[in-house]
Amino acid sequence: MSLNTFGHVFRVTTWGESHGPALGATVDGCPPGVTLDETMIQPWLDLRRPGLNAMTTQRQEADQVRILSGTFEGRTTGTPIQLMIENTDQRSKDYGNIAQAFRPGHADIAYHLKYGLRDHRGGGRSSARETAARVAAGGVARAVLRDLLPDLTILGYMVQMGEKTIDRTRFDAAEILRNDFFMPDVGAVAEWTDYLAAIRKAQNSVGAVVEVVARGVPAGLGAPVYGKLDADLAAAMMSINAVKGVEIGEGMAAAMLTGVDNADEIRMGPNGPEFLSNHAGGILGGISTGQDVVVRFSVKPTSSILTPRRSINTAGEEVEVVTKGRHDPCVGIRAVPVAEAMMACVLLDHLLLDRAQTGGLRGVIG
Amino acid sequence: MSLNTFGHVFRVTTWGESHGPALGATVDGCPPGVTLDETMIQPWLDLRRPGLNAMTTQRQEADQVRILSGTFEGRTTGTPIQLMIENTDQRSKDYGNIAQAFRPGHADIAYHLKYGLRDHRGGGRSSARETAARVAAGGVARAVLRDLLPDLTILGYMVQMGEKTIDRTRFDAAEILRNDFFMPDVGAVAEWTDYLAAIRKAQNSVGAVVEVVARGVPAGLGAPVYGKLDADLAAAMMSINAVKGVEIGEGMAAAMLTGVDNADEIRMGPNGPEFLSNHAGGILGGISTGQDVVVRFSVKPTSSILTPRRSINTAGEEVEVVTKGRHDPCVGIRAVPVAEAMMACVLLDHLLLDRAQTGGLRGVIG
Amino acid sequence: MSLNTFGHVFRVTTWGESHGPALGATVDGCPPGVTLDETMIQPWLDLRRPGLNAMTTQRQEADQVRILSGTFEGRTTGTPIQLMIENTDQRSKDYGNIAQAFRPGHADIAYHLKYGLRDHRGGGRSSARETAARVAAGGVARAVLRDLLPDLTILGYMVQMGEKTIDRTRFDAAEILRNDFFMPDVGAVAEWTDYLAAIRKAQNSVGAVVEVVARGVPAGLGAPVYGKLDADLAAAMMSINAVKGVEIGEGMAAAMLTGVDNADEIRMGPNGPEFLSNHAGGILGGISTGQDVVVRFSVKPTSSILTPRRSINTAGEEVEVVTKGRHDPCVGIRAVPVAEAMMACVLLDHLLLDRAQTGGLRGVIG
Amino acid sequence: MSLNTFGHVFRVTTWGESHGPALGATVDGCPPGVTLDETMIQPWLDLRRPGLNAMTTQRQEADQVRILSGTFEGRTTGTPIQLMIENTDQRSKDYGNIAQAFRPGHADIAYHLKYGLRDHRGGGRSSARETAARVAAGGVARAVLRDLLPDLTILGYMVQMGEKTIDRTRFDAAEILRNDFFMPDVGAVAEWTDYLAAIRKAQNSVGAVVEVVARGVPAGLGAPVYGKLDADLAAAMMSINAVKGVEIGEGMAAAMLTGVDNADEIRMGPNGPEFLSNHAGGILGGISTGQDVVVRFSVKPTSSILTPRRSINTAGEEVEVVTKGRHDPCVGIRAVPVAEAMMACVLLDHLLLDRAQTGGLRGVIG
Repeated sequence: MSLNTFGHVFRVTTWGESHGPALGATVDGCPPGVTLDETMIQPWLDLRRPGLNAMTTQRQEADQVRILSGTFEGRTTGTPIQLMIENTDQRSKDYGNIAQAFRPGHADIAYHLKYGLRDHRGGGRSSARETAARVAAGGVARAVLRDLLPDLTILGYMVQMGEKTIDRTRFDAAEILRNDFFMPDVGAVAEWTDYLAAIRKAQNSVGAVVEVVARGVPAGLGAPVYGKLDADLAAAMMSINAVKGVEIGEGMAAAMLTGVDNADEIRMGPNGPEFLSNHAGGILGGISTGQDVVVRFSVKPTSSILTPRRSINTAGEEVEVVTKGRHDPCVGIRAVPVAEAMMACVLLDHLLLDRAQTGGLRGVIG
Repeated sequence: MSLNTFGHVFRVTTWGESHGPALGATVDGCPPGVTLDETMIQPWLDLRRPGLNAMTTQRQEADQVRILSGTFEGRTTGTPIQLMIENTDQRSKDYGNIAQAFRPGHADIAYHLKYGLRDHRGGGRSSARETAARVAAGGVARAVLRDLLPDLTILGYMVQMGEKTIDRTRFDAAEILRNDFFMPDVGAVAEWTDYLAAIRKAQNSVGAVVEVVARGVPAGLGAPVYGKLDADLAAAMMSINAVKGVEIGEGMAAAMLTGVDNADEIRMGPNGPEFLSNHAGGILGGISTGQDVVVRFSVKPTSSILTPRRSINTAGEEVEVVTKGRHDPCVGIRAVPVAEAMMACVLLDHLLLDRAQTGGLRGVIG
Repeated sequence: MSLNTFGHVFRVTTWGESHGPALGATVDGCPPGVTLDETMIQPWLDLRRPGLNAMTTQRQEADQVRILSGTFEGRTTGTPIQLMIENTDQRSKDYGNIAQAFRPGHADIAYHLKYGLRDHRGGGRSSARETAARVAAGGVARAVLRDLLPDLTILGYMVQMGEKTIDRTRFDAAEILRNDFFMPDVGAVAEWTDYLAAIRKAQNSVGAVVEVVARGVPAGLGAPVYGKLDADLAAAMMSINAVKGVEIGEGMAAAMLTGVDNADEIRMGPNGPEFLSNHAGGILGGISTGQDVVVRFSVKPTSSILTPRRSINTAGEEVEVVTKGRHDPCVGIRAVPVAEAMMACVLLDHLLLDRAQTGGLRGVIG
Repeated sequence: MSLNTFGHVFRVTTWGESHGPALGATVDGCPPGVTLDETMIQPWLDLRRPGLNAMTTQRQEADQVRILSGTFEGRTTGTPIQLMIENTDQRSKDYGNIAQAFRPGHADIAYHLKYGLRDHRGGGRSSARETAARVAAGGVARAVLRDLLPDLTILGYMVQMGEKTIDRTRFDAAEILRNDFFMPDVGAVAEWTDYLAAIRKAQNSVGAVVEVVARGVPAGLGAPVYGKLDADLAAAMMSINAVKGVEIGEGMAAAMLTGVDNADEIRMGPNGPEFLSNHAGGILGGISTGQDVVVRFSVKPTSSILTPRRSINTAGEEVEVVTKGRHDPCVGIRAVPVAEAMMACVLLDHLLLDRAQTGGLRGVIG
């Protein structure tokens, strides 16, 4: 992982700014011979697309992905895959009033201090638009995983928005794509809808917690000590805009547990070892165990809000900042497909890395 | 970051097993001309050393570090620094009963499944002893940082152990090294001592939360999109044994906040921008802002406990596992100096990386 | 360096195939604040452009580069720079007859064996068209070097084509851009022209040797042991299509020298150390000395020729292969601007890498 | 490849100085389950060992390698392998007279300029002693290759020393280990012996050309564009001390050939494609074809000679330098086992990298 590249052997480099002509991802190390065309990537982008529903930014972007290289007659060739998404609705004028002022809680000031200049239009490189490129790359990863791990499923969803949490006893995966929140609890939809409408009306925004679960992950992915699967997942999720915390399995709550409670006991099942619980979130010693891999992360509230906040500008003058424009009242919602994409990329990367080192051989039990 | 190597340009590769002849760290990319000898590294190792107090494993290890390369006449030469710590108290017999069985919640089974074999003595590579090598590498990083950022301080401490949390109104940095918990609240010491003694007596263990704060970090460290400072910190902390969650600033609690509350407002102070709060934990858009960098992480309870737990062995037989030997009832305690070391390595790595890209130039305000 | 990425901190990933919609380079790690637009890159591409003169392929490509990201108001922002060149003259039908057969001496068979499939149109990824992306990236590197090392010059030229070599006593740098060969010996132009015309008429092709000299390289670039400047230059030049040998300074002829002859003796000049000779080619122990960095490499003859050669096809049938289409009779000619671009990228990468490790400090003499 | 680390997934980091307490290699990414102990590495070190015969330095080093980590009960565990060789015969006083002066043609001045200080004892990090660590790492690579590619052989030998070249018609592989030169032409031994004795007597040294051939390399190793097998081999060989040129197949002589001559024609043999010649040196488009991989490189004459040469010292004073001590009159001789080790590491690295990307699948012909 280095600046704008992610992955050990399945390497994704994203590029592009919010208001430049285009953005995209350069995907290197993809296995050859995998069926791939734009129609296999576009649906994931459509899920993340701005303007999709009442709860997200009203910026209208088609987010049409084009594959510029790396495929031939509908299959990957093993050479770099260039994925490009043109920007079509860059209303730069919306952002004119924050060209010089720094939005509190936003990357504006950090970019200015580091680079001495910044593309202020729509946040430039720090815009959540960058995550479209991740979702596109995740589409490539999923196409490969479909071939290599046909039983793998990756499912992301919101579990918390501000003060509201889901009722896990009502968990229904089929509900996730039916509401505006990627949320699995149909009983909470009305309440969440009212809550977020009130937040938006108050010219405010709110944070969220997203959970992503991968089922069907083979044992043996990940490696000591710094190439641990959980370390890479933590970096992957923390690299998503506005993320402030990442948890595996019990996460922060592991601090409350005793060793007796936390032990995921093991029995022999018909197909091998079976765990009686999953406090570990599917990862022990940085290596997958075959259980569900469970990751959660928090997303801070959107920093671009209509409520005035005190700040300064590049001239060092104290100003009040109000961010007009089209911003998500809860940016965590659109983080769901992004997190799924990151999970797909990390799992594929470790699957390939494991092939390199062990050739996919597995230790026998019994 | 790749398997056992950490860092972009200040690269640390740790090696060694719990019961092999030695373990250590290969440090590449260290700046030349920095004053360095073993006496500058040993004190950090002494803090992490097992057997130091009643609350940690009673294994007796001198943990004497030797510099085998990379220095000349007491200064670094810019070539790789090899740090070696010989293992002296490897009572392998203690572990005989778990040679074939897998401890629930431990990396045993994951290593077996991935590699087909494992060094079961003391957990082999998955042992917390590996962290001694990190602390040694952190000593090198600190020596360099002392030259490059003389005002930087890095302070780690426990904020929670099981159900017990510190009272932050009684925070006293000077207290941290006076008790057995690296804990800043003198008023809680007696209570924590009794609590952990009871846990140990019950043949149990308990989790913890550790916080690390870096003060004096210059603005501008970190880079979009995957080389973010917080992404690298998340990976660094998650790579420490038994860590299950990582937070920056508000962390998971950011989900509860609104944008109005979360905005760290900015004013002009005599020396430049001043933030009125630090929900961000010193990092915006993956780049440091000059505020304190605040990281927290959870450590799960030690999985090696005397209470019997159900498991299986390599033959696929169902067994009860009891881990004798000398284990920490709260492995989170010794994670404190490890986390400080990781913070030092990450900050130095990003300082050098930033020198590469920007030459250290900073954007002007005012 | 990993698959399609080159460089440690100034990282260039090229992508694209000969007959796909576009090709390009993703440049990560570029310093911010550098003046850059397409007009600073296009001239280098124009030098490499096919169809430029009678001696190169008659494929007509405008090779217009577009900067899709990483600049704002004419300056680099420190974020990834995407350089795209659309393919406009992909006469795929020309290549129909070699869709299944493998050209002897060409990458066709190697790609087929490795990947199981290949984009045969114009050689796909193995086409020399890929080098257009390198030249574009080299243009970015030169823009940065102009700021950081204003006295640096990089000059490439042919010194040999088949049996013909230049007369170094007639070396005239100004001549290089005046003839069709990037060749510094005006006295040899007529002879080379006739020679290559005869080669082409004989439905044949011929090899070449290219030399690249960088003047004004500061001492101290490069690092032991595997990040040596000469090791990276060797990899860079060997990675260019059709290159079979790389030399630094005396190169292969160093084998003939004695230690007495090979010693580049040193005196003190008005501005520091001066070397009395440059057998070393400006690099000692993998580190630049401040002398001219001198690299030479051989380019094999184009494998796509009109003379029939014996080969096989994917069905395992023995066939005769004749490559129609528009091929350079001496592909070494167009390797000249490519080699200059690689030199620029390597030098900038090591300049930035050195800033990271040493901060640019230099040892004092005297 | 980064500073002192070599390889993509089989990663070797060497460390250590000529006169420090020890040197070694940290090997990460090694497959698990491979039989390995010191006796499988030591024989390769014994071949490279100084003081072995009359033609090499008379420094007496046992060069005993110890495996400090990464194996258990005689097999690799998949964790980092630490290989340590203690220095036992560091007669530092021999080097006292060059502590301040720079040997012409030696890395002394480059290290001083870059780092501001250097370990002058025996050349420090720039000493050829570093190559012992490479040979040890190569021993690990060979152990793995023995399992994965049992038919692979790697054979290195001298083909030229100063003005003397071998007669290839007398090539006899069995002769290589019988003479003091790793040379396959028994008819030339006496002449070479006299020649080198005269060079030594004249207080001089001489260069050499070494060739390494790998037989049994499967097709498909290497990858476009910068991860080419030949690019990595070029970097690997150029990174060996004193190497100034690297050739694959025809090498520099490819410049003299026409396309008709250079085409390695292909026929179908009983086991698949057969090439009628091997101008390519077994690599096309950066990917192995299944033919012998043939690499050659030149080694410059030892710069440490007894004949006085003009130079300067750190004070900027002009001096005459005479290097006493125990130096090889032809350092190319001991480069032979080093080159074999590098070949083994590169081939294994690409074998593992190919497993990652393609899973080892190969395209079918016929």
